[in-house]
Amino acid sequence: MSDSRPIALDAMGGDHAPHEIVAGAVHAVRERGLAVVLVGSPRVLYEALADHDATKEVPIVRAEEALSMDEGALASLRRPRSSIAVACHLVRRGDAAAVVSAGSTAGIVATGKLRLKGQQGVLRPAIAVALPTLPTPTVLLDAGANAEVKPEMLVQFAHLGATYAELAHGVQDPKVGLLTIGSEAEKGNKLVKRAHELLQTSPGIQFAGNVEGHDLLTGKVDVITTDGFTGNVALKTMEGAVRYAFTELRESIGDSRMARLGAAMQRSRIRDLRRRLDAEEHGGAVLLGLNGTVVIAHGASRAQGISAACRLAADLASAGVVPAIGEKAASQSRSHRLW
Amino acid sequence: MSDSRPIALDAMGGDHAPHEIVAGAVHAVRERGLAVVLVGSPRVLYEALADHDATKEVPIVRAEEALSMDEGALASLRRPRSSIAVACHLVRRGDAAAVVSAGSTAGIVATGKLRLKGQQGVLRPAIAVALPTLPTPTVLLDAGANAEVKPEMLVQFAHLGATYAELAHGVQDPKVGLLTIGSEAEKGNKLVKRAHELLQTSPGIQFAGNVEGHDLLTGKVDVITTDGFTGNVALKTMEGAVRYAFTELRESIGDSRMARLGAAMQRSRIRDLRRRLDAEEHGGAVLLGLNGTVVIAHGASRAQGISAACRLAADLASAGVVPAIGEKAASQSRSHRLW
Repeated sequence: MSDSRPIALDAMGGDHAPHEIVAGAVHAVRERGLAVVLVGSPRVLYEALADHDATKEVPIVRAEEALSMDEGALASLRRPRSSIAVACHLVRRGDAAAVVSAGSTAGIVATGKLRLKGQQGVLRPAIAVALPTLPTPTVLLDAGANAEVKPEMLVQFAHLGATYAELAHGVQDPKVGLLTIGSEAEKGNKLVKRAHELLQTSPGIQFAGNVEGHDLLTGKVDVITTDGFTGNVALKTMEGAVRYAFTELRESIGDSRMARLGAAMQRSRIRDLRRRLDAEEHGGAVLLGLNGTVVIAHGASRAQGISAACRLAADLASAGVVPAIGEKAASQSRSHRLW
Repeated sequence: MSDSRPIALDAMGGDHAPHEIVAGAVHAVRERGLAVVLVGSPRVLYEALADHDATKEVPIVRAEEALSMDEGALASLRRPRSSIAVACHLVRRGDAAAVVSAGSTAGIVATGKLRLKGQQGVLRPAIAVALPTLPTPTVLLDAGANAEVKPEMLVQFAHLGATYAELAHGVQDPKVGLLTIGSEAEKGNKLVKRAHELLQTSPGIQFAGNVEGHDLLTGKVDVITTDGFTGNVALKTMEGAVRYAFTELRESIGDSRMARLGAAMQRSRIRDLRRRLDAEEHGGAVLLGLNGTVVIAHGASRAQGISAACRLAADLASAGVVPAIGEKAASQSRSHRLW
């Protein structure tokens, strides 16, 4: 299945917007053969495209406003013509296959909910992140869209994540784990204890029981369901710990001349590895449960990260993840009194 | 200041009890010059000590029962003569300076609360962990004693952690951060938003604002306060990520012959580094807020880890951390209506 419609790329969101976003669009078009439209200030974007001799390769859709990186959910109401709002609008009208933005996560989530609406039967859209486990990624959600949730939402996140794992990663009957602080059923706070009970009796979920923080990268389960507060803290802790380990390693290697010689030999391999673990290379997080595909690239994304996010968005649109989630949510809300 | 009383070491708790615990006790006595008593089954412990020719160096206190690693809080009520209960009793009677156990965390917390009681003015004892930042560790608490907390408790954890950082790590006016999902005051769930307000106006706390998951290892603050659910997930995620990074690195290095040559040169440095990051080497977590010093060693601790935990327990007892926390809590509960 393929979708010839372009990716609507928010050119004004991100720490390095618009130049790295534009460079990412050019990379996605030239190196990955994707169709991309840039959404933002035409004058600024035209000049940036000209630097790449790419003014004829990447169309621009006008949006004169933008959400700044420190603006939160309310700004999406105040700025109906922001670049992220216009990008969502392109998807809603059927003119684009998916949205990609490296802007403020809170702004993207709020704008996506406002412009694309949640799918029928979906209680709350959630942010899903693919962790770099092998052979297939473990999907962690919610990674930050909902700081406050109810147990039923953790069950629905399990469904959203399982559908994502099936379609995006080809996992049959994904195993779902519930993130908490011990493997026994009674371990955790009230929220997860109740969610544990619900998950045990939920049709269509292969519930593998509780998982803990150290299971994020072991590949023990295919999907990890958690609230957006815990998920966000865990994800950022993981990224920080990996960065810390590499920094310490570099300093440790630099300590002696012999070691430095050894280090020179393997520098390229360490760089490769770091890249694989780097959030930027995964292409970003996905906002699941909306009437449209929205990929949230890391705020610090540079051209490579933006291009990878466009690839991810195109793949998700082609795989039909959004319609599949819609069908699943609708059938669950019919069969399950809780939803 | 020094304390000549021995450390009461729970010889029956831990994945590798009793042999690694006994080996750790022998190491602590011989290599660190500490006084240690082993608490557990005399017959078993005598034999294990005999293997080290140490029957005359380490006294034994009898406890015929033990909590198993998968037993939780209730078991501490059912087994008043468990090894951890007897160890706590020795501290309570003044016959030991501190307790060390590598047993089930839930069992240690419940037994500690039951046998040693919380200090006056302390709402809830909390588990504090020293993260390996430089030049001084960042104290994270609560790392798992309280899955469900109120905002006032997060404020008190800040006090407990600050007192610990001052006395155990020599930090003047420790900076305290609140763990949440964004740097702005309004980021997070209801619990942390309210705690943020309270911390801003709490006398005696140098509140540095919100911190996020990636700040655990940057040394940005001296103390991180959080609920025991989030703290436990974050801590285990951090440990898992560091372990993952090293495993991946080892496999990546093994990939090519050139790299393997380089790796041989620096193997010892990598091992050193890993050891510094390894939870076992820190000596474990500390249960703050009780009428006595309790150190919780990692369940997987081997002799080195147990010996380090005994060192930590002896240092904390000498530094007078417990009396200082008691004074602080009492004065806070007088001056602050919330407690």
